[in-house]
Amino acid sequence: MLEIEVKSYSDNIALIKSQLESMGALRVGTTKQIDIYFSHPCREFSVTDEALRIRKEGGHCTLAYKGPKIDLETKTRDEIEVEVSDCEQIASILKKLGFNIAGKVVKERTVYRNASLVVCLDEVEDLGSFVEIEYAGEDLEEGKREILSMMNKLHLSGNERRSYLELLLNKKQGK
Amino acid sequence: MLEIEVKSYSDNIALIKSQLESMGALRVGTTKQIDIYFSHPCREFSVTDEALRIRKEGGHCTLAYKGPKIDLETKTRDEIEVEVSDCEQIASILKKLGFNIAGKVVKERTVYRNASLVVCLDEVEDLGSFVEIEYAGEDLEEGKREILSMMNKLHLSGNERRSYLELLLNKKQGK
Repeated sequence: MLEIEVKSYSDNIALIKSQLESMGALRVGTTKQIDIYFSHPCREFSVTDEALRIRKEGGHCTLAYKGPKIDLETKTRDEIEVEVSDCEQIASILKKLGFNIAGKVVKERTVYRNASLVVCLDEVEDLGSFVEIEYAGEDLEEGKREILSMMNKLHLSGNERRSYLELLLNKKQGK
Repeated sequence: MLEIEVKSYSDNIALIKSQLESMGALRVGTTKQIDIYFSHPCREFSVTDEALRIRKEGGHCTLAYKGPKIDLETKTRDEIEVEVSDCEQIASILKKLGFNIAGKVVKERTVYRNASLVVCLDEVEDLGSFVEIEYAGEDLEEGKREILSMMNKLHLSGNERRSYLELLLNKKQGK
């Protein structure tokens, strides 16, 4: 599956919520996501622009691989995800294989749907609030247009291409 | 979980079945197992004596890591296993991470239970038939005694410490 998404910082999530609701977007729900990112035993993910993540969410656990971003403007990338029966066990397997914990991202995510867009409002622990707009259709060019139009409506600008993990690690290093 | 097991070659699986049944062992069932083994991107599993395996069995998929054997007589080793929602997807994730397919083992496994022992009769494609006796209790010394006593009753001798994968790879190389 190809993923196209744009992420922007926002200092007023409450306003974004009311704008989404007034344009008739469907509020899907709010969940807490605990993400553990791993480093590769012999490859530098920060150089290859890949990621390996375990996500704990509402009693479920998923393992996801994210390939390098293939579009500068949006965050289009390859993503492969499976559900796993136990987060602790899959973490143990990864550690035995030489993958180490690179960082942890904890956030509360509120999801809205509007036509073929999914809008996520993320309140990230120790980092701040962000709006991620993702296109869930087949036509990538159409997806880009819809994302940019939604950004205009929500008065969002800028595309933070760094992941929450990178932002958190940069913050720790005082960058 | 620690696993203690012994594996012996057998040229008469039908006789073993009737012996198990006459001693009152419970026949749990027969399944087909398709196992895909992977090599590590920067570690030689044949040297470190580890294994990473995806198993497809009756519509289910599991991912298992097996650590080095820690007992010469039995095949005691660390094993961590999780159930995964999709075998093809987890295989794709592993390939993206640099793990390659090292081999495939297809077998029909018939499982019997007798007290704290699990006896598996494996008919392995391109290899032959084997009896694996595993102890499913807490007391490792007791487990070894029970396994050796069962081997005597079934007139089995020898402990094949090589995995089916190793045996198949050796056979291919004419060893």
